[in-house]
Amino acid sequence: QARDPRGRCLCADGGLKMLRLNRVEKLDILPASPSCGKQEIIATLKDGAGKKCLNPESKFIQELIKKMMESRRSK
Amino acid sequence: QARDPRGRCLCADGGLKMLRLNRVEKLDILPASPSCGKQEIIATLKDGAGKKCLNPESKFIQELIKKMMESRRSK
Repeated sequence: QARDPRGRCLCADGGLKMLRLNRVEKLDILPASPSCGKQEIIATLKDGAGKKCLNPESKFIQELIKKMMESRRSK
Repeated sequence: QARDPRGRCLCADGGLKMLRLNRVEKLDILPASPSCGKQEIIATLKDGAGKKCLNPESKFIQELIKKMMESRRSK
C-alpha cells in the first residue's frame, strides 16, 4: 500500500472504531510522515473482504493492537 | 506481502530485536494463522532500504509499536 506520491493520506475518513481481531489477516501501521501528517492503520481482512482503515484514536483499536501483540502464538 | 500459500511463514529468522522508529515507513503485523503458527512483524524501511522482520518477543519492538501508537501526529 505505497502512499500516494502527491502527498495524500490513504484513509479519507476517520476509519472504523471497532473490529473483531479474528477478522484481521494483516495490519499495516503507517506512522505520520511528510506525505501524510497523521498516522494511518489499515487492516487487510480475511476471506478476501478487502482493506479497511481503522481509527488510531479509538481506544478499542488501540486495545486490538495490544491484544495482537499479546496473542503471539496461534491457539 | 501475501503469505506463501504453501503455508510457510514469511520470516525465516527470529527478526531484529531493535530498530529506530524514525527508520520505519510502514509496519505490517500478521497475527498467527493456520498458514503460519506465529505472529510476524515486518517493517518497511524508509529510503528504499527494503523490508526487515522484527522480533515480536523483543520488549524493545513491543515498545516501538506502543510508541508508534502514541505518536499519532507528525512532529
